Amino acid sequence: MNRVITISRQYCSGGGAIAKLLSEKLSLPCYDSVLLEKIAEKSGFDHEYIREEGEYSRGILSMIFSHGGGELSNQEKLWIIQHNIICKLAAKEDCIIVGRCADYILREKADCLNAFIHADMEFRKEKLQARSPEVKKEKFTQFLKKKDKARAAYYSYFTGMTWGDARHYHVTLDAGKWGEEKCAEIIAALYGKG
Amino acid sequence: MNRVITISRQYCSGGGAIAKLLSEKLSLPCYDSVLLEKIAEKSGFDHEYIREEGEYSRGILSMIFSHGGGELSNQEKLWIIQHNIICKLAAKEDCIIVGRCADYILREKADCLNAFIHADMEFRKEKLQARSPEVKKEKFTQFLKKKDKARAAYYSYFTGMTWGDARHYHVTLDAGKWGEEKCAEIIAALYGKG
Repeated sequence: MNRVITISRQYCSGGGAIAKLLSEKLSLPCYDSVLLEKIAEKSGFDHEYIREEGEYSRGILSMIFSHGGGELSNQEKLWIIQHNIICKLAAKEDCIIVGRCADYILREKADCLNAFIHADMEFRKEKLQARSPEVKKEKFTQFLKKKDKARAAYYSYFTGMTWGDARHYHVTLDAGKWGEEKCAEIIAALYGKG
Repeated sequence: MNRVITISRQYCSGGGAIAKLLSEKLSLPCYDSVLLEKIAEKSGFDHEYIREEGEYSRGILSMIFSHGGGELSNQEKLWIIQHNIICKLAAKEDCIIVGRCADYILREKADCLNAFIHADMEFRKEKLQARSPEVKKEKFTQFLKKKDKARAAYYSYFTGMTWGDARHYHVTLDAGKWGEEKCAEIIAALYGKG
């Protein structure tokens, strides 16, 4: 089995940056936006749809009522496509995969180091400002809380587990407290041990 | 403010051993069973009662119905006593405190590094066998799950938060995956950074 680092993370918590640092430190490929593009190519879904629906759920009800009884919703189709891509990537080589329930998808298919990254609101708001200048400052808290809620609902719907529960991960770190570099160092050291 | 490491942990996950290793590495006092004795001295409750009720709840209903309207239950009295002792210890010096919701109690009273330790069932069963040879092997899983449930209920009742949610802790580690020595090294390195 290949050795895969999965990085689950709160939106704007530094998880993506930590994955990139890890990729450099360990010389491993990192599948993040690259993964998004691969998915887009295979599925026919456009990038924007995947970005919005690929790991966020607007709530269980909308998923249940968005389609008829036996038919798969677009989000479920996308889940299957993502699932297959993640399995293929992990079967091919040691790598880092960010988000998309890779910790759950690969639980019996790779030798995983599952990490979860979170941060305090102040840290996340600074990142959000840089990433999405169109969002109004007074909406930052609401925006981030909505993202958390949608990501948690998505994870729960597709995995049956609780997003962010420490017991699902081999290590979780507060990137607001420690900084991205230190977090990457710790995960790299743990991966080194194997 | 003093710098305090709080170690929350699953029963038999190695949290206590990690706290002792940390205590040696960092030359800090560690309050665990010592803390229990201090509580016992002050409160008049006996050791056995504190061990069973000091961080376990048999369920919210039993707490609600165990006493009349305005009066405090014994468990609530014990909470207040533990709360005061933990605040005094943290006010006196840098230290390590294991369990008893110290992460929550000290959230505005000390400069805390909050860690959570968990482990897989196999690891915990080995510890349980060594610690409590009177428990029957076929009851191990049930015994540990009951402990988890009671600790989670206690934490939730007194703090209003979710026990084991990664977002409450600066670092969480799977001691079954990494071993106690490695976990202590990581927490010591993070404490060193400050």
